[in-house]
Amino acid sequence: MTRSWWGWGNVEDAVGGAELRALLDRVTALMPGELTDHEPPGIASLGLSAPRVTPPGSLAALCSADPADRAAHAHGKAFRDIVRNLQGDLRHVPDLVARPRDERDVTDLLDWCGREGIAVIPFGGGSSVVGGVEPRCEGHPGVVTMDLERMDRVLEVDGTSRAARIQAGVFGPHLENQLRPHGLTLRHFPQSFEFSTLGGWLATRAGGHYATLYTHIDDLVESMRVVTPAGVSASRRLPGSGAGPSPDRLFLGSEGTLGVITEAWMRLQERPRRRARASVRFGDYAAAVAATRAIAQSGLNPANCRLLDAAEALINAGVSVGGGVLVLGFESADHPVHHSLERALELCRDHGGEPSAATGGDARAGEPGEDAGGGSAVDTWRSSFLRMPYQRDALARHSVIAETFETACTWDTFETLHRAVTEAARQAMREVTGTGVVTCRFTHVYPDGPAPYFGVYAPGRWGSAVAQWDHIKAAVSEAIETSGGTITHHHAVGRDHRPWYDRQRPGPFAAALSAAKTALDPAGVLNPGVLLPAP
Amino acid sequence: MTRSWWGWGNVEDAVGGAELRALLDRVTALMPGELTDHEPPGIASLGLSAPRVTPPGSLAALCSADPADRAAHAHGKAFRDIVRNLQGDLRHVPDLVARPRDERDVTDLLDWCGREGIAVIPFGGGSSVVGGVEPRCEGHPGVVTMDLERMDRVLEVDGTSRAARIQAGVFGPHLENQLRPHGLTLRHFPQSFEFSTLGGWLATRAGGHYATLYTHIDDLVESMRVVTPAGVSASRRLPGSGAGPSPDRLFLGSEGTLGVITEAWMRLQERPRRRARASVRFGDYAAAVAATRAIAQSGLNPANCRLLDAAEALINAGVSVGGGVLVLGFESADHPVHHSLERALELCRDHGGEPSAATGGDARAGEPGEDAGGGSAVDTWRSSFLRMPYQRDALARHSVIAETFETACTWDTFETLHRAVTEAARQAMREVTGTGVVTCRFTHVYPDGPAPYFGVYAPGRWGSAVAQWDHIKAAVSEAIETSGGTITHHHAVGRDHRPWYDRQRPGPFAAALSAAKTALDPAGVLNPGVLLPAP
Repeated sequence: MTRSWWGWGNVEDAVGGAELRALLDRVTALMPGELTDHEPPGIASLGLSAPRVTPPGSLAALCSADPADRAAHAHGKAFRDIVRNLQGDLRHVPDLVARPRDERDVTDLLDWCGREGIAVIPFGGGSSVVGGVEPRCEGHPGVVTMDLERMDRVLEVDGTSRAARIQAGVFGPHLENQLRPHGLTLRHFPQSFEFSTLGGWLATRAGGHYATLYTHIDDLVESMRVVTPAGVSASRRLPGSGAGPSPDRLFLGSEGTLGVITEAWMRLQERPRRRARASVRFGDYAAAVAATRAIAQSGLNPANCRLLDAAEALINAGVSVGGGVLVLGFESADHPVHHSLERALELCRDHGGEPSAATGGDARAGEPGEDAGGGSAVDTWRSSFLRMPYQRDALARHSVIAETFETACTWDTFETLHRAVTEAARQAMREVTGTGVVTCRFTHVYPDGPAPYFGVYAPGRWGSAVAQWDHIKAAVSEAIETSGGTITHHHAVGRDHRPWYDRQRPGPFAAALSAAKTALDPAGVLNPGVLLPAP
Repeated sequence: MTRSWWGWGNVEDAVGGAELRALLDRVTALMPGELTDHEPPGIASLGLSAPRVTPPGSLAALCSADPADRAAHAHGKAFRDIVRNLQGDLRHVPDLVARPRDERDVTDLLDWCGREGIAVIPFGGGSSVVGGVEPRCEGHPGVVTMDLERMDRVLEVDGTSRAARIQAGVFGPHLENQLRPHGLTLRHFPQSFEFSTLGGWLATRAGGHYATLYTHIDDLVESMRVVTPAGVSASRRLPGSGAGPSPDRLFLGSEGTLGVITEAWMRLQERPRRRARASVRFGDYAAAVAATRAIAQSGLNPANCRLLDAAEALINAGVSVGGGVLVLGFESADHPVHHSLERALELCRDHGGEPSAATGGDARAGEPGEDAGGGSAVDTWRSSFLRMPYQRDALARHSVIAETFETACTWDTFETLHRAVTEAARQAMREVTGTGVVTCRFTHVYPDGPAPYFGVYAPGRWGSAVAQWDHIKAAVSEAIETSGGTITHHHAVGRDHRPWYDRQRPGPFAAALSAAKTALDPAGVLNPGVLLPAP
């Protein structure tokens, strides 16, 4: 397999043939028009300028100045990243890509960069969709992207406490492969699972497998090691503590601005043996939302509780329904879960939902999206879920804007927020593309509110698609912000969400965070411009 | 009812009569010896020096210089506090007790104190057992204790999202009384419930009702308002977010060093309607621990899962058993929970446990300790739980050392930690009192480890009991620290846990926290000496 420098995942997995034709047919059915394919440019044609910095001899072996390497680390994997890659628009490229082998290398690289004022961008899988790894760092003599991929081992497993010490650079599948012989799993399956790393999940507070309870990676952390320019911060392995503000919670979500996460003790699970799942159709969206809220507040804690609205159900699950489809899944390594599913279905029926035949039984091996189950419509949606980023790339090559954004809000504000965001997206699409489709699904639900995830599809114009998307994104971000949502439930802040994050974040907390950053990173070299203004 | 200035709770609820005689009989059975009662001193005999500071006219009405008021705010409610009160040893007394009526008053008080360099001690119920409210603040011209008791209202209830905006100074019972008409409850019942406040729970990361999942108040917080000298930090109401490090998590556990928490949106529950509970006897402690671990890792998530060791079961539940008693409780507002209890009991039987007859049925109104249920032994333990602080005071008057401390550790280290702590306590008691008893119970359990809570009973010597206890406490703290436990699972750090907290806390995090403190409290007046060295 070869990783794509410009797009999602593996080159060999790109959308083509019959899948591409079917995809384009679906799109033209929704948005009639001519679709022209645009090939990605060759690396040589990008004309990257030479690196501005040279590592000291002791670090030279860790550093790559290869143009393909530098190009592949210039952007994340947002729609705007893909399109800019396709257009050969790589204005900010790291001067070097450094690959430390261990914590000592991380320290040495930080020391060198701190001394020289060189910006350092910690890099996991590079799947950021918020400009988190893009070297837009003015005022530094150079930029080094620190790719942790060589630090990819499970170092220790504690089967009694069900926890493991894991290096931050490990990708999802390799992590699960190392845990499998111990009968354990992290069960953290973001959509990016195959192409993102533990360190990236921790740095960005990634959302994962569980729709309830353990929604973010934060809750699965027992302790962390973070190399900061001011020294190594190593928290103690503890199942719980009340000793001052949590050290780990400062580094969770710090997005590479306070230090480089090198390893963590993570809480693990046994693989589920019992499972029950179903999907439920609703004729009315408000009723579907009410049913989902009832389940979220019931204490049943489903592993999966994903409400697709009618458009999402149609486009990605091939289901035609008036209100929406709720995909429910329960799982356990210890006990039967059909009682829980039955009660959840009862709550759905109370709100007019029509369940499909419920299914249960043995579990498959831990894989992302494995639990979306409950009928073939939902199987369709699940495979769609994993293909979405590839399809997004194929559409981008055809100038179709296809992107997502997410938030979370309390239940009392959801209806208003949903309307405001949907209208803002439609209005913005009308302005820049004339038309477009907005979909919504819940990725996670809490007793006090949902995490809605929106999809946008619009016919872009080659050469203008980034500006068109940026216009739409600004409009929806504004709508989210003014409706009381968070600017990000799990995609992180990076550089792209900064204007709205700055308004969401309490002022005194910003001052405290900034002071903490100065204490840990006095030279201000760590991921400048992310979370905080560059100094 | 009259609050005791020197001891726990209400004067009218103090242990006396038959309860006192029975208590003293139990103690002398365990530790033979003469027991002499020592009356608390009168306020006038304390000889408090005059306040060193005078409030500006605009704040005078908020401030009390009454000696009884000042004496009642000089100490928390640890054993060492009670004994020092009984001995009239009040070396550090606040100059004034200020009672703001609203956020504006809080700001004005902070402004005045910041200008003058006067130390400010935020004060909720004053139930700290770690020196958290004791004005041991050298280097300030005066100390003002800011008692939030006037800010005690539920300001807003959102029944849809099940959340309420609540002022920080409200005590447990008054909070629940205000929520009851809405059919909602916070269900946070620390042992101190009646005499502690929401703000105190948040500032100290208090442990509450739930033995699993929502163990700390932290998880019930939707958003917070904190008045800092640098301005008001107001976070957004959100069910979840991935936007940078969590602002709330910086203030949770800040123990009054970063600001004064004035209100919070808290996540609420419906009152449970279904309940199932049981107690299980074990002949062997290691088997009881293994059973508890199996339940903690099962995903059954009992509301109560409290393992009493043999000594704890004997002293506080009147049960004679070789290994221990596990108290189990499940509850739900939505669905039956007997399946869960049955499975938990099966896990107990797998480890040699003998369940009492399980019970279930209707719920009583929300009260602390209500769910310790499952047979009369456990009812005994429950009433004992609520009487413990009063009994501790009665024993203190008779020079009997009776105190608790707690920690949390991973399951793989529990046996070693338990042995080290128990031996350290016994050895220290032999050194200073010749004899004594150590008990252990789990207050909370996690998939990756328990939170053990230890009780110590030893025959103290009048006039030396504080020094004797300090010797024991230092020995057990040292054992906890070197065995890998946390210095506090839910009692907070205050001034008394500082030496061990400083060793537990990662150095770079300490630097970050200190920098955050300087940004928010540039004059260094907020609770000096707590969490961080006084400047």
